[in-house]
Amino acid sequence: MKIYNWQFAPNCRRVRMFMLEKQLDLPALEEVIGDGFRLRPAYVDKWPHAMVPMLETDEGVRIGEAMAICRYLEDVYPEPPLMGATAVEKGLVEMWERRAYDEGLIGCAEVFRNTHPAFVDRGLPGSLEPVPQIPDLVARGHGRVRRFFQKFEQQLAHSHFVAGDRFSVADITTLCVSDFAKFNQIDIPTDCPAFARWYAEVTIRPSAQASR
Amino acid sequence: MKIYNWQFAPNCRRVRMFMLEKQLDLPALEEVIGDGFRLRPAYVDKWPHAMVPMLETDEGVRIGEAMAICRYLEDVYPEPPLMGATAVEKGLVEMWERRAYDEGLIGCAEVFRNTHPAFVDRGLPGSLEPVPQIPDLVARGHGRVRRFFQKFEQQLAHSHFVAGDRFSVADITTLCVSDFAKFNQIDIPTDCPAFARWYAEVTIRPSAQASR
Repeated sequence: MKIYNWQFAPNCRRVRMFMLEKQLDLPALEEVIGDGFRLRPAYVDKWPHAMVPMLETDEGVRIGEAMAICRYLEDVYPEPPLMGATAVEKGLVEMWERRAYDEGLIGCAEVFRNTHPAFVDRGLPGSLEPVPQIPDLVARGHGRVRRFFQKFEQQLAHSHFVAGDRFSVADITTLCVSDFAKFNQIDIPTDCPAFARWYAEVTIRPSAQASR
Repeated sequence: MKIYNWQFAPNCRRVRMFMLEKQLDLPALEEVIGDGFRLRPAYVDKWPHAMVPMLETDEGVRIGEAMAICRYLEDVYPEPPLMGATAVEKGLVEMWERRAYDEGLIGCAEVFRNTHPAFVDRGLPGSLEPVPQIPDLVARGHGRVRRFFQKFEQQLAHSHFVAGDRFSVADITTLCVSDFAKFNQIDIPTDCPAFARWYAEVTIRPSAQASR
């Protein structure tokens, strides 16, 4: 098994942290980012989706998308379950994971990709054509991240972990969002004490530290 | 079981079509859209995520997000499997489903929400504060949908269904995208014959017709 990786990318960290929570050794990680934070041409030739991470099995099957890779790993290595054990848990984990992604991670990505000079023609991942930055998306991204913190604060005020009593992949994505927000100078809002309590607890997990 | 529904919304259709493919009767559908295509206040009070669809179980558990609802249903009603039967299938179905969502459905939503007069202050779902339309997103959305068609054309040129030999939830999302694109005056490009072959076959499935 091999993973095509960009160490900095939150999407790649989601997969690394997932594997570490499963007590798996990380597989071979091939760094595919070259000059100017661009994907190396040889990787794009191999994987025209032009995104990371991508997992290649020993049989040569290629799976892209962080959560699709985690889904594959959850089936091969079911313990501990990180995507829910019962039908209701599976539904709630997926709901919170997707909320963290759509509001949190995409919100941060809107801020990052539309301001960073290295991404001036790369407003979206996965495109081989130029995608211009849209300055108005920076404010919209900030609003999106604010809503993410507010909604998750309400949940974490009465739930130990993001999707319930058990640590799950929803916590992994939420942590990766929190650290990506911090990189973009967005701190956990001061009116989100339950979120801060959760963050302090989750960020010292060995998987969180080792996946950086 | 009850589903809070907006009959027009592609995200709600994904769930209805999923249930019909499972040979399930549709549960009670409560329409929650009121004047001006806005969510009714009573629904937003009940569900501050302020999005559809939402499933409420007989025990009162509430699950939002189309794919989270499908995940719950897949576990309760495993046959026929629509999210993959083996680890590799599960990974590939999730990969293609997420690609259809991120590039196709969000691309169409960017076109729709940033042009329709009823959405002038609702550029994103799930926000109770105004989110202004961003005109530059219309062109970006069109580019995203174009890439969606191109990438799926390459896949469907050698794959009977979107994620392999078996019909899956990835086909459901892709069909909902195709019809949402058509609503936005975006037809299947003429240089995508494999996509057109796939569409002609999938759109006459009973689940596709009955979920409209």
